[in-house]
Amino acid sequence: MSTGSAATGPHVLRRINATAVLNALRDAEGHTATVSDLVVATGLSRPAVTRALTALADAGIAEFSGTTEHHIGRPAQRARFRAELGHVAGIDIGPHKVLVMVADLAGTVLAQHQAVTPAGHTGDGVVRLLRTALTDVAAEAGITPTDLWSVAVGTPGIVDHERGEVVLAPSIPGWSSLPVIAELRDWLGCPVAIENDVNLAVVAERWRGDDGDNLLFVQWGERIGTGMVIDDKPYRGASSAAGELGFIDLVTDLDDEPKPPTDGLGAFERLVGAGEILRLGMARCDQPLRDRLARTGDIADLFEAAAAGDEAAVSVVDTIATRFARGLAVQLLIMDPRCVIVGGGVSRAGDVLFDAVRKRLGRLLLVPADLRVSALGVNNVALGAVRMALDAVEERLTALL
Amino acid sequence: MSTGSAATGPHVLRRINATAVLNALRDAEGHTATVSDLVVATGLSRPAVTRALTALADAGIAEFSGTTEHHIGRPAQRARFRAELGHVAGIDIGPHKVLVMVADLAGTVLAQHQAVTPAGHTGDGVVRLLRTALTDVAAEAGITPTDLWSVAVGTPGIVDHERGEVVLAPSIPGWSSLPVIAELRDWLGCPVAIENDVNLAVVAERWRGDDGDNLLFVQWGERIGTGMVIDDKPYRGASSAAGELGFIDLVTDLDDEPKPPTDGLGAFERLVGAGEILRLGMARCDQPLRDRLARTGDIADLFEAAAAGDEAAVSVVDTIATRFARGLAVQLLIMDPRCVIVGGGVSRAGDVLFDAVRKRLGRLLLVPADLRVSALGVNNVALGAVRMALDAVEERLTALL
Repeated sequence: MSTGSAATGPHVLRRINATAVLNALRDAEGHTATVSDLVVATGLSRPAVTRALTALADAGIAEFSGTTEHHIGRPAQRARFRAELGHVAGIDIGPHKVLVMVADLAGTVLAQHQAVTPAGHTGDGVVRLLRTALTDVAAEAGITPTDLWSVAVGTPGIVDHERGEVVLAPSIPGWSSLPVIAELRDWLGCPVAIENDVNLAVVAERWRGDDGDNLLFVQWGERIGTGMVIDDKPYRGASSAAGELGFIDLVTDLDDEPKPPTDGLGAFERLVGAGEILRLGMARCDQPLRDRLARTGDIADLFEAAAAGDEAAVSVVDTIATRFARGLAVQLLIMDPRCVIVGGGVSRAGDVLFDAVRKRLGRLLLVPADLRVSALGVNNVALGAVRMALDAVEERLTALL
Repeated sequence: MSTGSAATGPHVLRRINATAVLNALRDAEGHTATVSDLVVATGLSRPAVTRALTALADAGIAEFSGTTEHHIGRPAQRARFRAELGHVAGIDIGPHKVLVMVADLAGTVLAQHQAVTPAGHTGDGVVRLLRTALTDVAAEAGITPTDLWSVAVGTPGIVDHERGEVVLAPSIPGWSSLPVIAELRDWLGCPVAIENDVNLAVVAERWRGDDGDNLLFVQWGERIGTGMVIDDKPYRGASSAAGELGFIDLVTDLDDEPKPPTDGLGAFERLVGAGEILRLGMARCDQPLRDRLARTGDIADLFEAAAAGDEAAVSVVDTIATRFARGLAVQLLIMDPRCVIVGGGVSRAGDVLFDAVRKRLGRLLLVPADLRVSALGVNNVALGAVRMALDAVEERLTALL
């Protein structure tokens, strides 16, 4: 049996070892570890770890710190991953906002900025907004946009991964036909990936919280989308169009012939999206709360009033909980996930809303559901984009070795 | 490097080769093949195939036929898989029927019998019916039930695979708590497996028709269930409770509080199941057709009338198509499968129904659906059970080697 083929030669093995050590170092507390720590974390031998660290230091990816400590008489040299070596950006393009994050190579977010998209915006306008926001955030992180190593963009709609294009995004007029990725690549001169926003939210949940097989993630804001993790892999469907809970129709009179939607929103989004929550609040609540909602446009005020016992606000929460439970139950009956995590703007509503949802879900399902609220809130899409951008960087780093 | 360990020793390798040859022989036309055919089918060397055939013949699993033919001057011995060596049974237990098939070891169905479950039946009654039907069908195949090598049972409801029990089956009263499998095993003295009926229908579709990744199968009869194949594996969900399309609720007034179901049927089953189709036919059709439906109870008469242009029958078909498209669209929006296959009793309706469904689906989806009607019809669950029983036999056969 030959063991010297190209795919398993000593050069390739050394690179695989160096990548394992690099990942362990990056994930260590303070991105710093001793050789002994890395032997434990990687399962490699001490000489292999030392060789890998030397290669990483030669490439400028790691550095040895002067500090040594004595561990049973032997000086333990400490190595540090140079997270500051490069930067990545994660971008969340929503129907009403553009959120940009710049992070170092360890995924620590150094600066972030959210720009509100003006009413009547088009795809072109979003691209302009994005350039400005990215320039500002990069400056705050001490770099210029062209210094970025890798960028990932999350967007609503159906994304064609091979062509790097948005195929369908009803929520942003003119967005679907734009060669966004090509334009960003030309400007930045680095890899730019694009992914459906909800799929990125799922990536972020798994990165920062629940590792998990058979997970359903529901992004609940103005729009509603879901992401699924099956067998520890994102499930996207045959046309990258799975998880469109926002478009299911629980409303139309059943025996009516189906009609195409009249606006960009899906039927379920019109029923329970942030816009409908605000509308119900304005219709049912008393004057002071109505004025507040009109001024801030923030449904958090409504949920706060409901939590404090305001009767009209509670009635809005109950209506929304009943509707949301109805739609979510449909997806749970079909998918039977191990757990459901709700993120997005509406997830900030807290127990006042989600306890009401849980109560109703129980009566709609055949097996109980484990419903949780995301800890990442509205940042999850951009964080998932940061993670996706970092994955692309890993390749570039190992190429240095 | 050691190559003589227990897991890869020459004995194990010989058994693996013999299993490959056995499968190729079983799947060959007439279960008969030459050594050359088997070399091509398995990728093994000629001496390895010959060794495997000798082992199979020694164990009585294969036999060499007297016929030889001259192939470029060399006599080609033909071997045959002895499919008649043993028998398996596949059983479909539905709310209104018990369908039993007995097949040989190559999966050829030798005899089958369908018994109608009397009204007011209980779990105990089903078990009695099953014993009688199995005894009759076995006799027709020339054996007694205790001759069976392996049995698999398909049943509605949620099946606990580890305990071999039906956890929840609202359609058959008293069924869920019965230790069915243990009772059958005691009687038959062979392995008895149990599986959800729709999962078995999917197995049958893949065995006899569509191989396919990312497949949605909808079993449409009195009840409605779906089975999914994701990444070429059956997807069952975290609690083996995925695919319960029959229980989604498109009807209840949206802002009503959810109520538990009042009968065993799910909300969607009540809307489009075979029972509702018959009810609509009785309510809308003219006297002659009504009389026919009352006499036969067979909705095929209704679909036949619709295909012939009967206006009232067409209106029933349109109503059912509109409702079914609404429910199916929900699952398609969530799963985005490569294709959908509809089986079960209602699938016999043909184009008059499914063209109407396709027309409506188009307006409800974001990406087009590929909707097909199963060629296996009402036999698919029992056929899937035969396939499952055969899988268990394979282990027993290789143990003989």
